[in-house]
Order: sequence, then C-alpha cells, then structure tokens
Amino acid sequence: MMDTQKDIEIRLVADRKQNLPDKSKMSFGKQFADHMLVCDYENGAWQTPVIMPVENLALHPATSAFHYGQAIFEGIKAYRRADNRIAIFRPRDNWIRMNRSAQRLDMPGIPEEIFMDGLLRLIGLDQDWVPEGEGFSLYIRPFMIGTDASLGLESSRSYKFIIITSPAAAYYSKDLSIYIQSQYVRAVPGGTGFTKAAGNYAASLLPTSEVRAKGYDQILWTDAVEHKYVQEIGTMNVFFVVNGTVLTPALDDGTILAGITRASIIGLMKELGYRVEERKISVGELIAAHNAGQLEEAFGSGTAASMSMITQLTYEDKTMSLSDPASWSIAPAINKLLNDIRYGKVPDLNHWVTLV
Amino acid sequence: MMDTQKDIEIRLVADRKQNLPDKSKMSFGKQFADHMLVCDYENGAWQTPVIMPVENLALHPATSAFHYGQAIFEGIKAYRRADNRIAIFRPRDNWIRMNRSAQRLDMPGIPEEIFMDGLLRLIGLDQDWVPEGEGFSLYIRPFMIGTDASLGLESSRSYKFIIITSPAAAYYSKDLSIYIQSQYVRAVPGGTGFTKAAGNYAASLLPTSEVRAKGYDQILWTDAVEHKYVQEIGTMNVFFVVNGTVLTPALDDGTILAGITRASIIGLMKELGYRVEERKISVGELIAAHNAGQLEEAFGSGTAASMSMITQLTYEDKTMSLSDPASWSIAPAINKLLNDIRYGKVPDLNHWVTLV
Repeated sequence: MMDTQKDIEIRLVADRKQNLPDKSKMSFGKQFADHMLVCDYENGAWQTPVIMPVENLALHPATSAFHYGQAIFEGIKAYRRADNRIAIFRPRDNWIRMNRSAQRLDMPGIPEEIFMDGLLRLIGLDQDWVPEGEGFSLYIRPFMIGTDASLGLESSRSYKFIIITSPAAAYYSKDLSIYIQSQYVRAVPGGTGFTKAAGNYAASLLPTSEVRAKGYDQILWTDAVEHKYVQEIGTMNVFFVVNGTVLTPALDDGTILAGITRASIIGLMKELGYRVEERKISVGELIAAHNAGQLEEAFGSGTAASMSMITQLTYEDKTMSLSDPASWSIAPAINKLLNDIRYGKVPDLNHWVTLV
Repeated sequence: MMDTQKDIEIRLVADRKQNLPDKSKMSFGKQFADHMLVCDYENGAWQTPVIMPVENLALHPATSAFHYGQAIFEGIKAYRRADNRIAIFRPRDNWIRMNRSAQRLDMPGIPEEIFMDGLLRLIGLDQDWVPEGEGFSLYIRPFMIGTDASLGLESSRSYKFIIITSPAAAYYSKDLSIYIQSQYVRAVPGGTGFTKAAGNYAASLLPTSEVRAKGYDQILWTDAVEHKYVQEIGTMNVFFVVNGTVLTPALDDGTILAGITRASIIGLMKELGYRVEERKISVGELIAAHNAGQLEEAFGSGTAASMSMITQLTYEDKTMSLSDPASWSIAPAINKLLNDIRYGKVPDLNHWVTLV
C-alpha cells in the first residue's frame, strides 16, 4: 500500500489494531497508535517523510544519541470533541520550540511543513486512536535523535525526526505534594534548561525518586547559584497565587522551559483581568506569603499534566499546606477554560486549536 | 557457533572481517571490530551477557534513552605491546566510575564480573583488532542505555549494557589552542558534571562548534556560579604547571569528571617528587602567572586523547601563549612514562595494566 500526497510517503499497516485500549487500562505512554512518522536528515538535507507502521528502529550501537545525547522531544495533545472533530492544541508552538532545542544542541531545524503537515497527516490517519471524554487525549511525541555511527565527540551529521502517538488518560489524578529542592540542580544560565533535551530529564530522575520515596510527588527546582529562586517542577512550569496576584518564574535566564500551557495560562489570565507577574520568586517570599495567609493557590502546568493543583509545598523541615482547591477562585476556572477551548465548548478566540 | 564459558554466551561472526583498516585511514570511532558484548537488564536482574557480531540494535521508538536520556558511557584503551600481548589500562577503574554515573542517573550498577570478564573475553576474541605501534590502540566503549518503551517520565526498568571497540590512532595530533568559556556552562554542583552522561556532552557541542569556527580547538569550561574557576576541557581534564608546581582543578564539588588518566598523572607526578595541588584555579591566577612568566606548561588528559599539550589559552580578548612543548620538563616526560607503562617498556609498579 503506497500513497504519496504532499510529499509524504505513506505505508499503512496491514491490519489495523483493535483500536483503543480500554480506558481504564490506559497507561501513559505505553500503548501506541498504528503509525509513526519518520523523516531522516542526511547529507545536509531532510529527506521525504514516511508515515509507516510503528516498528523498531534499527540503529548501530555507536549511534551518537546513545553516547553524546543529541536527543530532543516535544509533547502535544490532540482532543476528541463532542462532534468527533480532532483538535490539536498549539502544535505550531511546539514546532518553534523544538527548533530552539535543536539549535542549542547543534541539531538541524525541522522545516515547518515536515513537522506540521506530517503531524496532521499522521493524526488524521490514526484519529480512531484519539479517545473520547474529558481529560482523555492522544499524546503526540515528536522527537529527534542524532544517528551517526561514530564515537568521535562531534555533532552528528545524520538525524531521525520521528512522531509517535499514544492514547492518554489524565496524567495526574490527584493534588500534588511538592518538595522544594536545594541540593540537586536541574538548570543553570548558559546550560540547556530552556530546551527539551533528553539529558535534562535524565538528571532529574534520581532526585525525583528520592523525594518520591519520602512521600512527595515531584520536585520544585531552585536556581543553581543561590538555591533561592524557584524554577520549575519535574514535568511542569509552576504558578502561585499570592494575595490575588498570579506569580510565575520568568524565562529570561534560560533555565526554565517556555511551556506552551504556561503561555496559554498567562494569556487567558491577562485577558480575564488578573494581575500576572513573570519574575524571580524566592522560597523566602513563598514562606512569608504562606505565613501571612496569602499563599492562596499553587499549580503546575504542562502538556502531559495540563494543570495540576499543588496543596503542599515542603522546604527543608517546613511544610506549607494550602486550602482545598475546590475553594480556589483562579486556577480551577482557568483549567476549565483551557479544557473548554481544547474540547470546543467555548470559542477559540486566540486561534490556538488546529483541527485535523 | 555457540559456546558458553564463565556464563558468557558467544556467537561468533560467520566470516571475520579483513582485520584492521589501513593505519593511515583509521578514523576515530568509525570502524568497529567483529564483536560486541551485550547484556540486558530485565525484571530487576542482569541477564547472561552475550558476545555477538556487531549489528544494529532493534529498539522501539519510545525507548526511554531517546526521550529521557538515561545513557552513560566509558572510554578505555587496549594497547598492543612489542611481545604482542594486549594490555588494557586500568579497566576496573572505569567499571567503578561507570557505576558512579549509573547511580546518579538512577540506572542499575553493573556487576564487576559482567564488566571485567565480558571485557576481557571480548578483547581476547577480537585482539587482532588492536593495532600495533606507539600511539595506536583499540578504543573500548562500554555504554548503558535505558530501554523501556514508555513515555512516562520515570527511570527505565530495562537496560542494555554494551561494549563495542574501535581501532584508534592518536586522538589529537597537534598542540591545542583553547578558549576559556564564560558564557555557556557545562556543569554545576548538584548536577551531573562528574558523570559520563550523554547529556553532558550534548550540551557541549554547540559551544564547541562556535569556538572551532573561531579557530580554537576546544573549550576550557569555567564554573557556573562565578565563571571564574576552570573546570575541564571538552574531552579532557586540565593541568597547568606554574612556577614548577602542577595545578589541576579539585573534584570535590562534583562538576568535574574524575579522569582515570588524570589520577594516573597525579600519581606518577607525586611518585617523581613533583608538587601537585588539586584545588580551585581561577582564570585570574592563570593570567597573573602568565604575566609573571610562570605559566610554564599546560595540558589536557583523557583516555581518548591521553595527554595533549596546550600552547594557547584565550580568555575574552587576551591570548596567553606558552613556550614550545619540546622545551617543557614535566608534561612530555610524564606522557612518555604513561605510554611506556601502557606499552610495557617500563615496570608497571602500580598494577595499572590488565593483560588479556
């Protein structure tokens, strides 16, 4: 079965899978749709993208991504609306961010048409894999790896850009207890903290395992220099509501991921008239606000998790408990508005949604 | 062809390759010997190691190493001596260091017998691939990657430990011009700088490309906090001789790789009565020493490069030129002594060499 349209080669699976796994058995990122998109970069140029059955990659053991870590990714979600149209949330922003990651890791940028047309064709083909229901989605994982079979420490000359997809239930199902980390460090100005480089996440696994063993859900990272200013949570940006003002760490020192959910939340909040400050936020400021009874809300934001409410923040031997999120006025409303935009229940005034 | 001995399964290639590539065409890390060792970690246990023909790995596109960067490596060299015995330099120290990297990246430690017995069997089998001649060696690359096919951000439960080998000429053939970097950052206390994690190297590629475009060979990194204290060079630790005293950055803040060549050099120098100081070294101190005519020698050390003499150091708009290394009294003598130990020309008093 061959097809060419828009310069994408299509090789369909012989037999479609039994469609979706049972919703109650949906485990994040472990089940995959029928097809993937693969595009090779060779001899200085991106080759024809191929949509093909999800299958193992054959890679030489000297493949550079294994040794020198040129590996970046993105996370996007597609939602099934009541009218069965499939909506993808801000995918072009992921394309832009992926190319920022690529630049920092000395990898080639991906042309918009390969990323966007490839994505839309792939999701169109596998749209039966987008589960229905609030909170459910098809998680889309574009990634790129260096593929030279060479142990010399230099940037790879060949790459694979791949998109795989996986049906997903909501990522976090409960409110979060967060540990503010001041020993381990995630990111530093001049490093790769603003990218979705695989190596950033590798460095976070042990610290996260350690705090999970103590009963916390995630780490809130602090800056590398003074261990004083908060940065982001494992897979999410972080927000606080202090005395009615929304605070989130600024992006300007290059240590924090420029979250697309983060940007969307800031945009919606400003449209709704909330005061939002992107700036440095110290742990001391949070403790003082909590002591004054003004730390009203806290939450993480990200594509995988959307918005996750934080009800406990622990720093050294001090635990700050927040009130029940059911009583919060800002975060739950914004979360609902974001989801209503995704699922098409309210007008998409910012043109964030791409329909398949 | 099957064989089992010491719990290693052996599958030989059907036809041995034409042995070594021509020495003049030996390109670092691009040609590989006939066999590799592969050992899988599954269900909480290392499985039987297999020595098998070098062939592509079949990996699901969701393989965790591509996405979350659990990927570490080591570098070791085997040397062919005049009597045709094959000598491996301090491989047990690489095993220890690999397990330190594994611990930081939340990966399982490799048992000594799998690493050491596997290595010795592999090199014994492919010993025709160890080239003869001073400076030539067989480069040995043990590495480990997370292999779960899952997009959830968590440590992989399955891994592959692999050893591949590649015949190597000397890595650097000329003296080095080094740029002292104070914008980009390689490592910070609390991070992964002391490990051989793939992600560390990915972060260094763009900064290195940028300085190469300006005519420098490598970067000398400075600390993340004050951009003042030197750390290490791309693939090497760094040493300076100032007024007869040997200086090298200390390991204690966890930002610097604990080089095995570094440790060997320090050990030999101390045995020979040189004064060696492992401590913080500021760029200002180097500039002052140079201005006083006391920056006598500088070199990098590492397995791939062994010792590489540095004749130029540039910081911002100041370039410090050193004298011709032929006139140096310490570094060239230590380099010769190290090589004489490897090639068996002098007694191995420290028991650093493992003969195959």
